Formats: sequence, structure tokens, C-alpha cells
Amino acid sequence: MKLLRVGTAGAERPALLDAEGTLRDLSGLVDDIDGALLADDETLGRIRAAGASGELPALDATGLRVGPPVGRIGKVVCIGLNYHDHARETGSPAPAEPVIFFKAADTVVGPYDTVLVPRGSTKTDWEVELAVVIGRTARYLESAEEGLAHVAGYAVAHDVSEREFQMDRGGTWDKGKNCETFNPLGPWLVTSDEVPDPQSLGLRLWVNGELKQDGTTAEQIFPVGEVVCYVSQFMVLHPGDVINTGTPAGVAFGKPEPKPYLRAGDVVELEIEGLGRQRQELKPA
Amino acid sequence: MKLLRVGTAGAERPALLDAEGTLRDLSGLVDDIDGALLADDETLGRIRAAGASGELPALDATGLRVGPPVGRIGKVVCIGLNYHDHARETGSPAPAEPVIFFKAADTVVGPYDTVLVPRGSTKTDWEVELAVVIGRTARYLESAEEGLAHVAGYAVAHDVSEREFQMDRGGTWDKGKNCETFNPLGPWLVTSDEVPDPQSLGLRLWVNGELKQDGTTAEQIFPVGEVVCYVSQFMVLHPGDVINTGTPAGVAFGKPEPKPYLRAGDVVELEIEGLGRQRQELKPA
Repeated sequence: MKLLRVGTAGAERPALLDAEGTLRDLSGLVDDIDGALLADDETLGRIRAAGASGELPALDATGLRVGPPVGRIGKVVCIGLNYHDHARETGSPAPAEPVIFFKAADTVVGPYDTVLVPRGSTKTDWEVELAVVIGRTARYLESAEEGLAHVAGYAVAHDVSEREFQMDRGGTWDKGKNCETFNPLGPWLVTSDEVPDPQSLGLRLWVNGELKQDGTTAEQIFPVGEVVCYVSQFMVLHPGDVINTGTPAGVAFGKPEPKPYLRAGDVVELEIEGLGRQRQELKPA
Repeated sequence: MKLLRVGTAGAERPALLDAEGTLRDLSGLVDDIDGALLADDETLGRIRAAGASGELPALDATGLRVGPPVGRIGKVVCIGLNYHDHARETGSPAPAEPVIFFKAADTVVGPYDTVLVPRGSTKTDWEVELAVVIGRTARYLESAEEGLAHVAGYAVAHDVSEREFQMDRGGTWDKGKNCETFNPLGPWLVTSDEVPDPQSLGLRLWVNGELKQDGTTAEQIFPVGEVVCYVSQFMVLHPGDVINTGTPAGVAFGKPEPKPYLRAGDVVELEIEGLGRQRQELKPA
């Protein structure tokens, strides 16, 4: 299923994009698409059946804002340097074990929302990423298979990053990862049954129409199941938590000087095979 | 005012500890103590008046669990190496600007709840900290005075830390800061009007009755108002967000070998002047 949330920021209603591409209203069945729903197989089954029956009311998509596909996100765990090609372009060795950092859940916005270039920023950068949404509580998992079994679904994430804040201002990477609007997510949450192999998805990102990233999750150093299992050794993952699993090569930081960092007015588009496409215009904060 | 939340984890009710030390039920006035309440001066005024009038129903504190004093916390921003004496003991220079890292909100537990030593941990460490709770949205503030004006209140936080996960496992500090139960908070949220000078508070921590940390917020490199102002340049702070403002000297990591890291069975007690006292027993995860 493709689940999404449409409407004004903070007041989105749950919806389904059905097999014919029609937007269907889910608000008669559930309040929201959130961790509680993603952990509830029975209600998910009811949504699936209602979607297949064609009985759900259609929604007019005209002019309708698309929000992030998951509400009430608890935390966004991010994996750094998780693609062989991206580690190479940053001059870093492939990490021996996953690198973890955080984005606050309040950085998450819709897939077509404006992204703000922070005040004082000269190094705002793009990163297309496969986001994993957790469907059941994960705590000290024992295998990558168990890791995969705890995934409710997948979405496109844009891990917007300010490289000066991230690397030249002291402390951890978090300083450059948590600016306002820095995590567009969506358009859809595609349930894991429709993503049989998360390690064979193409990811692409364009800036002002020019292709910048063109990778595949096959290049991930630590695949999704291993990542979920690994993270669960260090923290509890709850339903509705998100893991951004890293970006492939092609970010501004990896280019020769002068590096083509983002500026107000730029337009970024990004997509992952089967998970849809995002488009953001950049504006000053 | 001293605001708190009592009852079973996840189902706490809001309460007030009045000037006579009597626990008063606030559930007739508000649903919870959370960001929405902390941003609502009118309702806070009504609570203050009701508390002063003595008309609020008393609660029997016997056997009642105390939860964290703020519900629905959005994010917990942490400031590293923010005390001159602690920076010295870790062998680090005083940072030129605040070091930021994160704890997930789901690490927050009550002040007397069990703290779990993570599986595989050999370096679980203690850190008493002054927690600042945000009362109004802070975005690109311009001064320390403005920073202080965005603070709703203060509480005791225990920034439990696993040093091997934090420093020897690759990536950012976040890996050692987000284990289950790693952020006891409370017992109370003391509103900022009752903390005229957050830079003159004594902080103390004991392990099994032995005094380990005995500091003062006067040693903070970046005082509270500056911290709030600084953080607001890199991210938006929302009502109900928490900032753990760093720990003074005396952590296990700063001691000579063999460093006295925490083990299951240990008891940690910590207090900050005017903000109350915590006590946790450690158990294996």
C-alpha cells in the first residue's frame, strides 16, 4: 500500500493512493498514519481490504498539500557514510560499524514543502536517502532478518545538511542536521510487502534539473536489516520512528571547489524507484 | 511553582507541589504538563491562582510513582563539555562554542525509575545536569536575555552515558547517549520565576552514598541564556523541548583507572539546589 497524509501542516488527514492512482480518504477508518497504526496489523488489514474493494471515498488531489506520510514521529535516527561511493567521495574510509546521528522529528516536512537555507549558511547540501519506518518495537534484535521484520515501510527522505555547521563548528554532526525544514519525507509510505528487496532501489537527485546523485541501495555498506538490528543494540526503536539510511555519492561536499552548495531559489527534485518523487524550492530562513 | 506528573508510566496525571509541600491534583484544570501548557500563560496563571487558594484537591503521595515532569517532549538537546571543571577532567580544551548532541525524547523516564545498564556495556557513567524546559518557540534569538525569556522552567536531569558506545564505536556521541532509560528527569519542573539566577545552583551526585559530583552552574562555560540563544541559530526550539546544559566534574570517565563505571545494583542519587532530588537503582537491560 501507499499511505500518505494530505492537508494543512499539522492537520493532515490519512489517505491511500490506490492501485489505479486514485487518492482515497482514510479518515473514516483511522485518525492518522502513525506508529500506533503501523504496529496494528488488524487495522492495516482493514485498510488494505477497503482499498482493494474500491469503497473508500475518493479525494480531490487538486491543490492539496501532501504532508510527511507519518505523523507523531518519535525520533529520526540517521546513518552516516553508509554508501561505498559516498564514503569515497568524502575521503572517509568505509566505517567499521554504522555511524549514528540524529535529526529531530520536528525537522520533518512534506515532500513538496519549502526548504529553508539557514541564516548564515554558506554550505547547505542535499542528500537523497531511503527512509525506513519502524513498525514494531525493536530492542536488542539478533539478526538482519529480525531487523527487516520490524520495518513497516519505506519512503524517500531528503537529509538536508549544512556542512559548515556539521563539521566546522565543534561537536557532533547534529549541529548541521537539525535546521528548520531539513527533512522532507514522502510523498508516500510504501508498506514493506511492496518493497521485496530494499537493496536494489535506484535513488536520484537533481538540482535545477541537473542530475547530481544517481545511486543504488545496492551500494549500502550496511543494508537495511543490519542497520535496524545494529541500532537496536544502542536504543529502543518504536513504531513510527524513522531511520534515514544514508546517501549515495554526488553531494555538493564531494565536488571540486567551488562546491555547488544550495542557495535560495534553487529547486531540488529527488526520487527513489517505487517510492515516488519530491520537489522542494529553497528559500531564505 | 513546582509542577509534576504522577502515576503509571504513559498515564501520568498533572500535579502541583504546593508551598506547604502538599501534592495537589491538577487534572481538573489541565490534561497534562506539556509544551502546549508551558506556552499558555493564561492557564499557567489559573494554576498558580488555584494553587495559592488552597482549593485544589490533595493527592495521596503514598506509593505514587513520579513520572518525568513534562509530557510529549519533542526533543532533548544536550550541551557537551559545558563546565570548565568537567572539560579539564576529560582532558578537553574548553570548547570555543557550545557542543551539541541529542538524546531521543523516549529516553526520558521518571526521577526514581530504574536505569538499565545496556547489554554489553562496561562504561555506563553518570552526569548530573541542569535541564532547561522551553516555554515559547525560539528561532534565531538575538541575545542571552532573549534566551532566558524563552525558558519555562528548570529540572534535574541525569544524562546517563555509555562511554565506549559514545567514544570508541565510531560516529557521534549520540550512540552512547540514547540507551533505554538514559534520561531520568524531575521530580519537578520549577517555573523560571522561582529560579532567579540559574547560574548559581549547586549540583551534586552520589553513587552508593559516596559523593562523586559537587559542582555549581557558576562553572558553566556557556550560561543558560547563551545556550538557548545559540541553539536557536541551528534549530527551532519548541515549547516542551528540553536542553540538558552539561555536567560538572566528577564523572567516572574523569577518574583514574580502574574507572568506577556503574554496574547493576548501584544506586545513584542526584540533586540540584531548589530543584529536588532523584534516586535510581541500576539493573541489567
